[in-house]
Amino acid sequence: MKLSELSEDAIVEQITGQILLDPRVKIGPGDDCAVIDGGDHYQLLKADCVIEGVHFSTEAPPQAVGWKALCRTISDVAAMGGEPLDAVITVAVLPECTLAWLVDLYRGFRYAAERYGVNLVGGETSRSPGPVFISVALTGQVEKERLVTRRGGVPGDPLYVTGKLGGSIKGKHLSFEPRLAEARWLTANIGVHAMIDLSDGLASDLPRLAKASGTGFEIAWASLPIADGCTEEEALSDGEDYELLFAVDDTVGSKLETEWKKVFPGLCLTCVGRLTEGEGKMFSKPGYDHFQR
Amino acid sequence: MKLSELSEDAIVEQITGQILLDPRVKIGPGDDCAVIDGGDHYQLLKADCVIEGVHFSTEAPPQAVGWKALCRTISDVAAMGGEPLDAVITVAVLPECTLAWLVDLYRGFRYAAERYGVNLVGGETSRSPGPVFISVALTGQVEKERLVTRRGGVPGDPLYVTGKLGGSIKGKHLSFEPRLAEARWLTANIGVHAMIDLSDGLASDLPRLAKASGTGFEIAWASLPIADGCTEEEALSDGEDYELLFAVDDTVGSKLETEWKKVFPGLCLTCVGRLTEGEGKMFSKPGYDHFQR
Repeated sequence: MKLSELSEDAIVEQITGQILLDPRVKIGPGDDCAVIDGGDHYQLLKADCVIEGVHFSTEAPPQAVGWKALCRTISDVAAMGGEPLDAVITVAVLPECTLAWLVDLYRGFRYAAERYGVNLVGGETSRSPGPVFISVALTGQVEKERLVTRRGGVPGDPLYVTGKLGGSIKGKHLSFEPRLAEARWLTANIGVHAMIDLSDGLASDLPRLAKASGTGFEIAWASLPIADGCTEEEALSDGEDYELLFAVDDTVGSKLETEWKKVFPGLCLTCVGRLTEGEGKMFSKPGYDHFQR
Repeated sequence: MKLSELSEDAIVEQITGQILLDPRVKIGPGDDCAVIDGGDHYQLLKADCVIEGVHFSTEAPPQAVGWKALCRTISDVAAMGGEPLDAVITVAVLPECTLAWLVDLYRGFRYAAERYGVNLVGGETSRSPGPVFISVALTGQVEKERLVTRRGGVPGDPLYVTGKLGGSIKGKHLSFEPRLAEARWLTANIGVHAMIDLSDGLASDLPRLAKASGTGFEIAWASLPIADGCTEEEALSDGEDYELLFAVDDTVGSKLETEWKKVFPGLCLTCVGRLTEGEGKMFSKPGYDHFQR
């Protein structure tokens, strides 16, 4: 069977099903980051790769590519309620690549690292047979009482999304700002039942959060925060929004909306539906799936 | 300037020179792993990538490829004197890749993980535009008094190498055993001034260790442990030996050799030279450099 005949989640289940983990590991494969007991806190660990021709075009400015590669992992740490710590980066390029290109790429890593308080503790280069390949490993940490996973949602929880959805390919995918401050504020002031970063699109990531929480979901279609110039379908399925989707207790919705406007006046927050009993209605069109488009 | 006109080390210096690190970071870019203060111990962090057409051929058995990808990073943790803890793996493949291939690849990851006590805490798949890309992030830890870096060698230290060198491409590069137990024994029983794992060949990696230690070196040419069927040049420059090269105090050499034979009777240990004052004679032929061959 070819991978193109399977969903990404089905593949991950197949390959990680037999893995044994020791009790230090609170969350293994299947969330935005791995979570490991670190005594008085949890350690977070994420690896990600960004590939020319898949995640960025050959013409993309290298500095923006570097920014994107590191910020994707910071977005995953944010989605767990954590703070990023240390990153190690490996870059594979053709021997014909210029030093200037690589220096610009690293400028992007450095800007993102300085902006979000990440230490770039390791960097290596290797030879690629063709496309540029960038791998980033990022550690983070989170206070135990502020850890948020995909699993904690309960039926009735309102669902919120930061920012607007769709059209990321027009440019946002290279310049987005991971919602780190927003996620930290949420876990300190509101309490969040479940959270995920929208990397594959609401139509893929909401079913993931609901499935992990053992709930269904319903969408408030009229409320969807659609980016200017996009269709509803693009907002659901384009992916690479790097916004937060989260579920909170039904009792905190109005406080959340009031406080949010004061603290983050430049970023909209929208209630896009709620978690329900049973299985959620599936979206008519599957979202971005790495092997199905 | 193209990368092919520069050495790998010169490139890394160029791109990591301006990076700021906070005081938690004991060792940043430039050693086998990054080293971060973890209170009563040091944390280790390594990221690495393995690419089809560079690190393995299309015909290589996927299980062996998985073994190699994880064991490369375990070898780096061993070279710091540490123990591996948790790994996160990202695999990018063509949509035409079969599930059976990916399952076999993960079997290789799992065998290595179980053998060396690593938790596979995360696994993701992505789409590649062509070659298979595997990225591995591995954490580890080491007791503060047992950390070994490349920097601690002093003139007069004898230099030792485990195993035999050269010819790895004939098969060893896919089935090597990282010298984890050996490195742990060394740091517990002998004390090691400086250590590195031989991934690029003695002719590349010994100058790195000497440069980091601020010493020169000389080679005991007649003693080189050359693998069967290999030339001296291949032993120096083939790379991918994944053996340990280390410097110890001049006073412990004979104790080391006696004890080693009792504890690791199946693995030869060879004194291949010593660190010297000043600059070491360069080898006539550079070793494996990712951009120069």
